[in-house]
Amino acid sequence: MARIIPSVTEALHPSNINSKALVKLVTTVYYGTIVHTPALNQLQVFPNCAVVVGSSGSIINLIPNCSSISDVFTKYNPELDQKSTKIVDISGNPYQFFFPGFVDTHIHAPQFPNAGIFGNSTLLDWLDTYTFPLEASFENLHKANKIYSRVVHQTLQNGTTTASYFATIHPEATKLLSNICFKNGQRALIGRVCMDDNSPDFYSESHEDMKTNTVDVCNHIKQLGATTDQECDAIILPTLTPRFAPSCTAKTLAWLGDFREEKKLHVQSHVSENIDEIKLVSSLFPDASCYTGVYEDYNLLGAKTVLAHGVHLTPLEISILHKNQSGISHCPISNSSLTSGETRVRQLLNSGIKVSLGTDMSGGFSPSILSSARQAHLVSRHLAMKTKKEEDKLSVNDVLYLATKGGAQCLDMESTIGDFGKGKKWECQLVDLKSTGSQIDIFDWQLPDYLIQRGGYHLKIAGRELLNSDDYFQDFHGVGLSKFDNNEEHKWINDDGTFIDADQSKFEDLIAKWLFNGDDRNTTKVYVNGRCVIDKTE
Amino acid sequence: MARIIPSVTEALHPSNINSKALVKLVTTVYYGTIVHTPALNQLQVFPNCAVVVGSSGSIINLIPNCSSISDVFTKYNPELDQKSTKIVDISGNPYQFFFPGFVDTHIHAPQFPNAGIFGNSTLLDWLDTYTFPLEASFENLHKANKIYSRVVHQTLQNGTTTASYFATIHPEATKLLSNICFKNGQRALIGRVCMDDNSPDFYSESHEDMKTNTVDVCNHIKQLGATTDQECDAIILPTLTPRFAPSCTAKTLAWLGDFREEKKLHVQSHVSENIDEIKLVSSLFPDASCYTGVYEDYNLLGAKTVLAHGVHLTPLEISILHKNQSGISHCPISNSSLTSGETRVRQLLNSGIKVSLGTDMSGGFSPSILSSARQAHLVSRHLAMKTKKEEDKLSVNDVLYLATKGGAQCLDMESTIGDFGKGKKWECQLVDLKSTGSQIDIFDWQLPDYLIQRGGYHLKIAGRELLNSDDYFQDFHGVGLSKFDNNEEHKWINDDGTFIDADQSKFEDLIAKWLFNGDDRNTTKVYVNGRCVIDKTE
Repeated sequence: MARIIPSVTEALHPSNINSKALVKLVTTVYYGTIVHTPALNQLQVFPNCAVVVGSSGSIINLIPNCSSISDVFTKYNPELDQKSTKIVDISGNPYQFFFPGFVDTHIHAPQFPNAGIFGNSTLLDWLDTYTFPLEASFENLHKANKIYSRVVHQTLQNGTTTASYFATIHPEATKLLSNICFKNGQRALIGRVCMDDNSPDFYSESHEDMKTNTVDVCNHIKQLGATTDQECDAIILPTLTPRFAPSCTAKTLAWLGDFREEKKLHVQSHVSENIDEIKLVSSLFPDASCYTGVYEDYNLLGAKTVLAHGVHLTPLEISILHKNQSGISHCPISNSSLTSGETRVRQLLNSGIKVSLGTDMSGGFSPSILSSARQAHLVSRHLAMKTKKEEDKLSVNDVLYLATKGGAQCLDMESTIGDFGKGKKWECQLVDLKSTGSQIDIFDWQLPDYLIQRGGYHLKIAGRELLNSDDYFQDFHGVGLSKFDNNEEHKWINDDGTFIDADQSKFEDLIAKWLFNGDDRNTTKVYVNGRCVIDKTE
Repeated sequence: MARIIPSVTEALHPSNINSKALVKLVTTVYYGTIVHTPALNQLQVFPNCAVVVGSSGSIINLIPNCSSISDVFTKYNPELDQKSTKIVDISGNPYQFFFPGFVDTHIHAPQFPNAGIFGNSTLLDWLDTYTFPLEASFENLHKANKIYSRVVHQTLQNGTTTASYFATIHPEATKLLSNICFKNGQRALIGRVCMDDNSPDFYSESHEDMKTNTVDVCNHIKQLGATTDQECDAIILPTLTPRFAPSCTAKTLAWLGDFREEKKLHVQSHVSENIDEIKLVSSLFPDASCYTGVYEDYNLLGAKTVLAHGVHLTPLEISILHKNQSGISHCPISNSSLTSGETRVRQLLNSGIKVSLGTDMSGGFSPSILSSARQAHLVSRHLAMKTKKEEDKLSVNDVLYLATKGGAQCLDMESTIGDFGKGKKWECQLVDLKSTGSQIDIFDWQLPDYLIQRGGYHLKIAGRELLNSDDYFQDFHGVGLSKFDNNEEHKWINDDGTFIDADQSKFEDLIAKWLFNGDDRNTTKVYVNGRCVIDKTE
């Protein structure tokens, strides 16, 4: 643990830190299997793809069905200098692919030590028993430094390339969280929590402090981007964070709404998580049309606003969210753990609402968006048990979409991250289904034929490391390696560079195995802004 | 993978194999933290305990609050020869403890390759699409050998010391599974699946074959116990396995009922998993009082009978189960995945029904009972959302009880396994909350004071490896190490050797962290029948 924690002095002063996601970069070609979810329920796989990433970290070209790396330089991008271009080639390994980084749109960084500790509580008693006492202790910067360093390390290890963090009310600790994200190269939205009403004496602030401290933290984050000579993409952004309607006075909500509009800022908060909470909001804001209506009344909804949960949204609330293009962070692990309810994700999607995933640590016990996606899949089935609607079930591809592109949409970052579109950032994870200790069991006959064929050369020279090739070709498949020699008559992949149907189906099964039995071990490298910020293979 | 798979020839002939759980054993003293769940919702922790395990693998003595290992020989068990006794001392590590091995009372070994692959299916179409074709292929013994070797390896790695396996209809492949369990030292009940009605042409058997093959496999398993000179505890037992009522003719059910009574055998099957399945049973057995009634009518219920699922049991069915002392294997991951429903576990427990946990691979996607316990906890909350009954929520301690002692009860093995009672087998896992790669994050101030005190000596000499002692003592706890010097006035543990309340509460939080964020990495050693059959520290 010690090694990943900087000294507080170091962590507090941006002039001393450099971001891993802003180091100097050379043009790089990534070659192998590329997988993403460009649309809901659509898993697009390019099994033999070259991606050219420029020195700014953005995708210059994506070349499906690229028969060799040299083609990139001779045929597709002749302007590139082969000598100064870096090559990352995973094409020999049928178990590896690049997948967009996960986007966690709702996570409480200070609650990390409480992961797994919630007993039989529900939202309101959980806040009093577990949450407020821990958050209040973040006045201690040594403690904040240790915990924040750990949470950023753990989320990155689990493939979270972008996170929208709730911090605490403390400005210095919140700046420290910004610095730690910046240093480790995690794209992050950082929110100092605003709470000047209905909060415990030991953990509350005045309206004036709320204003001063909010401005102070926003300025600090702005300054972070100015600390480097590198081309800066502002990987750390501020986000206004009224904890939830009950914990803010009307004048605080009003000031935040004005500040949002003036500075065009992101906003994050909670909505309609729990029945008792909804009743509380209704009693505190008797003039509001509904819980979501409170945020609209104070000008806090916009395309950059994400509200967590939305378990019990009414049709009116859904229409308000739609009108304002605001998104929902679905936090299924938290909703199950705190017995909050089953969010009707399909209904929200069908209503045109942007939906993403949040871990909601420590309401949710896991720092992993992969685990959250898994639980989203299961919770949708519990919802379907109740509604008897087959369509309420989310598919594997659906939840992976929510985990990546859905997150990008909710944070209004769709032009930057979420999939492998041209011009977007190379912001992804290298997934290895057979990494050391992987809990995913794949038998050779479950691999797409094309990946076997592509790996044929490697098979012949070092095959037993990757595949029990004898098993595959003799026991299960009943064909010899010669099947995979070049054969003009056999169509291996479609014209657009994607798998033929049989292989697509097999690959989707592998992706399902990753969703259900994969974990941090399968995420072997993590890239943010084109830079490798985690490399477990070193 | 290759290393864990024996040749088929080797695996087929019991005369060639020795069981890891029957190797010669010397008397051993285990010293450190011992944790188990002797009753529902009760987590009993002996933080400074010595357990004396005899050469048969059974617990001779459990000595709570044992101040030193030498006391075992001088004070408690003077008849022991210290020189020939082995010592396993984990008392210096506050993150390690022994916990009973997990009992998986429902797992389909041949379906292992399909883990995670189930799409949007529900029970009956899932059987046709995914399950029957894969199971039918187990006529191929090479394939059976590879898959069965893998599943036994994986379940043991995840702490499953006892498993009740469904195999396939194939007698040779089923014998092979028995041999693989025997060789690897996993306690197992092995069931050749009986199905002579309403089954696909490519995967069915005649009534006559059912009889012959059932007897054949039972005899083989009996013979397994006779292959060794060691004292044999019959770690492999046969279990009669009518797949489920619809797949058996009346005469097959009747013959199995008679055979059960004659041989006093275990029985396993399925019951009331899915609404369509229940309707099917009702149409096929119009004279039966209910689904459970079918099994009672054919004399298949007894104290050694475990029925999987029981999601939709009626009060009549619950009373039939109670009368016959038969148990339920609750399979929460499967029930969520296949949208089967939410089993009312608390109602079953309150009705005096024995309840345990099953992974139900591959209806469930995980080979881990720890994952199943986690999902049991979450599913009980989805049930509570529906029933609005607070008591329907299962606690952390509840689900760990189901995972261990509940399993022992369902399999009628409570006198042998399930907790650390005197006379029971030493059948457990060494859990290390800070093993390499552990996903459990514990901050020093979350440790029970007593464990810090006990580890004080180690702290002083090698403390930084185990604890950031400075952090603990300065940053968080506000006390110096001197607090932990012997102090007559401070009571460290209760008279019965358990934690004082404050430490018990802290330790239960650590156990919750293990349940929610732990995985195979935290199970570092596994013991069956007193013998270490998995050692990841080697």
